[in-house]
Amino acid sequence: MSMTPDLAAIEAMDAADPLRSMRERFVLPEGVIYLDGNSLGAASPAVFSELQQAATREWAQDLIRAWNTAGWFNMPVELGDQLGRLIGAADGQTVVCDTTSINIYKLLHAALGMRPDRSVIVAEGDSFPTDLYMAEGVASTRPGTRLRLEGVDAAAIEELIDDSVAVILVNHVNYKSGRLRDMAALTRKAHDAGALIIWDLCHTAGALPVELDRANADFAVGCTYKYLNGGPGSPAFIYAAARHHGDVHQPLSGWWGHARPFAFEQGFAVGSGIRRFLCGTQPVLSMRALKGALDIWNDVDMTAVRKKSIALTDLFIQLVEARCGAYGLELESPHDGSQRGSQVSFLHPHGYQVMRALIERSVIGDFRAPSTIRFGFTPLYVGYGDVWQAVDVLEDILRTGAWQDARFAVKTAVT
Amino acid sequence: MSMTPDLAAIEAMDAADPLRSMRERFVLPEGVIYLDGNSLGAASPAVFSELQQAATREWAQDLIRAWNTAGWFNMPVELGDQLGRLIGAADGQTVVCDTTSINIYKLLHAALGMRPDRSVIVAEGDSFPTDLYMAEGVASTRPGTRLRLEGVDAAAIEELIDDSVAVILVNHVNYKSGRLRDMAALTRKAHDAGALIIWDLCHTAGALPVELDRANADFAVGCTYKYLNGGPGSPAFIYAAARHHGDVHQPLSGWWGHARPFAFEQGFAVGSGIRRFLCGTQPVLSMRALKGALDIWNDVDMTAVRKKSIALTDLFIQLVEARCGAYGLELESPHDGSQRGSQVSFLHPHGYQVMRALIERSVIGDFRAPSTIRFGFTPLYVGYGDVWQAVDVLEDILRTGAWQDARFAVKTAVT
Repeated sequence: MSMTPDLAAIEAMDAADPLRSMRERFVLPEGVIYLDGNSLGAASPAVFSELQQAATREWAQDLIRAWNTAGWFNMPVELGDQLGRLIGAADGQTVVCDTTSINIYKLLHAALGMRPDRSVIVAEGDSFPTDLYMAEGVASTRPGTRLRLEGVDAAAIEELIDDSVAVILVNHVNYKSGRLRDMAALTRKAHDAGALIIWDLCHTAGALPVELDRANADFAVGCTYKYLNGGPGSPAFIYAAARHHGDVHQPLSGWWGHARPFAFEQGFAVGSGIRRFLCGTQPVLSMRALKGALDIWNDVDMTAVRKKSIALTDLFIQLVEARCGAYGLELESPHDGSQRGSQVSFLHPHGYQVMRALIERSVIGDFRAPSTIRFGFTPLYVGYGDVWQAVDVLEDILRTGAWQDARFAVKTAVT
Repeated sequence: MSMTPDLAAIEAMDAADPLRSMRERFVLPEGVIYLDGNSLGAASPAVFSELQQAATREWAQDLIRAWNTAGWFNMPVELGDQLGRLIGAADGQTVVCDTTSINIYKLLHAALGMRPDRSVIVAEGDSFPTDLYMAEGVASTRPGTRLRLEGVDAAAIEELIDDSVAVILVNHVNYKSGRLRDMAALTRKAHDAGALIIWDLCHTAGALPVELDRANADFAVGCTYKYLNGGPGSPAFIYAAARHHGDVHQPLSGWWGHARPFAFEQGFAVGSGIRRFLCGTQPVLSMRALKGALDIWNDVDMTAVRKKSIALTDLFIQLVEARCGAYGLELESPHDGSQRGSQVSFLHPHGYQVMRALIERSVIGDFRAPSTIRFGFTPLYVGYGDVWQAVDVLEDILRTGAWQDARFAVKTAVT
């Protein structure tokens, strides 16, 4: 695509899109262009139906028996295997549970315990902050543990890896810039130094093909409410390579991680395999919502997702640069699609106001302080025509200065 | 009630029951007598309606904006306050989040950190096991921490409390026997020794009046899926007395516990008040289900709940002793209603088979190894007539030996 496509070309791209029919599997409000699936994925009738089944039939009618009859107790490992197929994990290595933050805590403890002679955690200064907060929390319980940060202690994470490093906690895609790491290469680098590596897949699970087993990754975590569309706050996941299962200890040793949870024994005896990362009773309704969302992926080819993701984001960058280039936007994401997740970020000195003006015009992305406007492109329900229209609105807001309206200057609470 | 009541007397009790109309707020399968609300509470249209609203309207239509527009982000503290009113906690001291197991981990760390010169955790050998497993987990991250158990190191928990004890982790009601502790007295005993106390309210929240503030309790945890009817695996809660908020550190320091979660700062700065016990993103759908369940309690007088609970359990014991006394049942719960939670447990050498036979006849209680059959009486939806019928079926099963049928001998997976 060297020439900027026109609307006819865009329509042709939509007509030829092999994933086009997936859009019907989701519910989106009329007239909204939703470019924030990288923060909260869209709802789907499949999810509604699972929720209703779990609440009004299994719970209401089977009551306590549903733990067996509806398979609730095994959901964490069954959904884990189902999700594992989307991240290149063979069965028995992924479990759905708790939150990303808590799962990072478990894995950092596990990894540090496997490298008792080392004391350094390497992470990224521009990481999604909870990763760093959890590393601080782990360090507070392990005197002597030190945190080394890319962007603070060195410019590149590779420079921080030496034989004092126990574990590297790294985002596969940066939440802000969308920069994609080379998983296989960094994992090799970690292993060469005798370190372990934990991949945070929050911004790649469901966004592009992930190959944990092939990359020889040690551990991974991620959420399921972004590209996997599991619903607000749907349970997170943990991946641990099978080769490590015998060696890990994690201190959140609750009864769901016990070898015999229903024997009600006094002492903890760790469960086998990936179950050792479970802790307490999981939120069944939220988990069943996730099941509905994951089922949609049974019919999806992740290679097609990646191809469309790059095409959508390339198109967005091309159109923005062609039509909005004069208005002070600066591309924060890598220009090369192969280096990028499924999002595009631009810097703008008044990014907050620009995003608020966009949202008022029903183009929903989000803002990250101090000046990032983020647009997520989720190939299952975003089309090329959406990209065209979003840029149309963005251009209009920038050209007319509509974002300067006083009401966009007031900070609202969240997102 | 010295004379065993007859069916006419039972019917009169139901007719005079001030909580009778609450039964209509719940959905229960036709023909089932549900005596396992102490394990998983019943479903309600209020919950279904919250779930549907949260999924099909807020999430599907408002998408990311619903974190603000639907108040999702504040739910943990708002539901915490709502729940706090049921456990005698003034506002700002209770937060709904994560699981009981994880919350025990946070509180044990917090309490141990507040008593740096002490190293002993006191707990109950017959505690619900996850409490002990989490104490083991905490001890694994704090070398030198020791666990002292009632029933192992001494016969009574009071004998274990001395000036080496940092914290006592104790169940308000024992999950198996239903024995109720005197919260005010044991809290005083703990404080006299300079120790802190954590109350596990899993079997009392929603079952009877709890007076955390009045008892001068330090901390509490509990689940919401038993007597509070929040749905399978609904999020748990933490209570921390306001006087401790400035002193506690807990290592699960995720972004939801940050003072400015949406500033995306590199370093952790602890949030104010009870928010410091939050960690990661909470399961909104499960939390909204809980909201529906808690709303029901707005119309309930907990004193009436307790009165009916004692009447139901007294009646059950009286009828079982009168009608089934010859068949080898032994009361495991305290005979005195004031010493008992809202459940009754009997020992029977073939308890597993007896319970399976009961369940097959639609009287649903549960079994706890090696020989406990448990019956929970939830005053909001169990009536005196249910008690009568349950005993009728139990007597029949014991008298005829129906429980000896071979198919009841095979162990099933869970519950």
